[in-house]
Amino acid sequence: MIKLAIDAMGGDFAPKINILGTVKALLKEPDLYVCLYGDQFKINNILHQHFSNKLISSFKKKRMTIIHTDLCLNMDITNLREVLSTQPQHSMFLALEAVRKGEVDGVVSAGPTQALIFASYFIIKTLPYIKRIALAPLVPSLDGRRTRILLDAGANIETQPEQLLNYAICASIMAKELLCISHPKIKLFNIGIESTKGRILEKKTYHLLQQDKRILFQGNEEPQNLLSTDADILLNDGFVLNMIIKSYEGAIESTMQAFKNVLTSNFFLKIISKLFYVKKLKAMKKKMDHKEIGGAMLLGLSKIVVKAHGNSNEYAFYKAILQAKKLVQQNLIQKISQQF
Amino acid sequence: MIKLAIDAMGGDFAPKINILGTVKALLKEPDLYVCLYGDQFKINNILHQHFSNKLISSFKKKRMTIIHTDLCLNMDITNLREVLSTQPQHSMFLALEAVRKGEVDGVVSAGPTQALIFASYFIIKTLPYIKRIALAPLVPSLDGRRTRILLDAGANIETQPEQLLNYAICASIMAKELLCISHPKIKLFNIGIESTKGRILEKKTYHLLQQDKRILFQGNEEPQNLLSTDADILLNDGFVLNMIIKSYEGAIESTMQAFKNVLTSNFFLKIISKLFYVKKLKAMKKKMDHKEIGGAMLLGLSKIVVKAHGNSNEYAFYKAILQAKKLVQQNLIQKISQQF
Repeated sequence: MIKLAIDAMGGDFAPKINILGTVKALLKEPDLYVCLYGDQFKINNILHQHFSNKLISSFKKKRMTIIHTDLCLNMDITNLREVLSTQPQHSMFLALEAVRKGEVDGVVSAGPTQALIFASYFIIKTLPYIKRIALAPLVPSLDGRRTRILLDAGANIETQPEQLLNYAICASIMAKELLCISHPKIKLFNIGIESTKGRILEKKTYHLLQQDKRILFQGNEEPQNLLSTDADILLNDGFVLNMIIKSYEGAIESTMQAFKNVLTSNFFLKIISKLFYVKKLKAMKKKMDHKEIGGAMLLGLSKIVVKAHGNSNEYAFYKAILQAKKLVQQNLIQKISQQF
Repeated sequence: MIKLAIDAMGGDFAPKINILGTVKALLKEPDLYVCLYGDQFKINNILHQHFSNKLISSFKKKRMTIIHTDLCLNMDITNLREVLSTQPQHSMFLALEAVRKGEVDGVVSAGPTQALIFASYFIIKTLPYIKRIALAPLVPSLDGRRTRILLDAGANIETQPEQLLNYAICASIMAKELLCISHPKIKLFNIGIESTKGRILEKKTYHLLQQDKRILFQGNEEPQNLLSTDADILLNDGFVLNMIIKSYEGAIESTMQAFKNVLTSNFFLKIISKLFYVKKLKAMKKKMDHKEIGGAMLLGLSKIVVKAHGNSNEYAFYKAILQAKKLVQQNLIQKISQQF
């Protein structure tokens, strides 16, 4: 049995989608056990609204525990350090505390990213040699056939070359265990493909990556190739990756909007597009949507913590749970530790 | 008469589009005089292929000089310093030398960006107080109604806050003179809108921009809003802006390709889309295309130098010439100098 702590209260549509996603995961994975941290009245309400008494009681008997707490983190949380020390009974903190104590094997939360990183750092601690946590989300290719790991996607605003090397090693094992890629290709995001391009950070990191036998480094990649690259892992610091991800979000959104305007620019064209294109365009949008991909791993921790997107739907939350379970099953942390 | 030096040999489609764009500008602007630097045989050939003898001889009599040179820079130029000192007769260098000597009022080149920045720095020199050149291209809004100045778009990989402030002041005057915006709004590209967000660079720059009375600073802007922001000037260092621009190029290209696949996914749909959408989609693509916007200004120099995009077509090169002419006419350099 794999035991996961689920932050039932984190995310834009919590607790509803968290509960629905969790039950979906329980139905899919017979060897999954969940500890739900959150408001027990709300959690039970949602369970009873959507599922039969029989199913609920069978889960509660063998594969589900609800740990009640009144407190959950808001997206606009500030002063994290104070909140963490004075109110440790927030649902996210309790879930992290459970994995630290070994009561569960991993954590899934859709709560505020910076809070999850910060609290994980203080409650769980990082692995020796890896001093800071990296956020490693999965990104689809345009044809949907490949999945890439991006990191660090926003945890560390300023990073050292040695850290990026450590992240590359961790992500390489993650790609092996999660995506079943035997020799994951790593590339460094940069403004040009030559080894002499970029800031001091990129030049030094290039050199370190190239020399390391534990990974398969394949040089620089320019950000315009994010969706078409043959790399399995794409690397840079948290500031730069955040800018790239947000640029893609903005550009795709803007282009889609412009297309929509063209396709529906008058009543007649509206009908034409409805008749012939709407379904296909929706499928395309879904393909470009992060929700299809699941959660982001918090790499560098001594335990498995997966961050589901704040606006996850039921399916995305479910995928994040499956991801956490798989990473536990594959002994990711142990395999990472062996590399250092 | 405004006199511009034109690098006839720089760019992917040189010298043809350079000559065609130049003639278009001469026809539009009766008070424009051009000095074309490049291979006189090729230049004359193109002139005679496309225009009447009468027009050519009337231009050559009063408004056009061809200065012959065999040498032009390739895109894959390395070792710039050596090339500049041993072979100063490259068309780009001769054009820059002409503006330095005061023989012309400004320069337009579609040659390699880094070469143009480097050579401008050594031949023309920067203004006092502004130690390094920033590249400032114009970017359209999605609806095509607004134009923004981005900087620094790749000239300085690593920048200081004081430099970004200086660039903001220069760009503010450029927006006034070129885009006729009386109080240009400046925003700083960052990972969040709060003043505490970002690297040390963003935090310090935010503080400097906020305190300066010469500019209208309106806080941070996240990169997903590049095409919809109300800012007239968007600022960050050369590395980050390069990553944002390339991300937008890649995302727009990928999304367009995905749409094209949807619209033409079978023979029937191909006909439907041809009948009803192709024209509109072409217009939309044009709107999102940098070619419509013209050239990038090299800000910080003591002379006007405009960089046309390497793959400029005739129209883009023509627009870059008009831009250089307008900046000369408006006394941009003098107005910038007065601010320091």
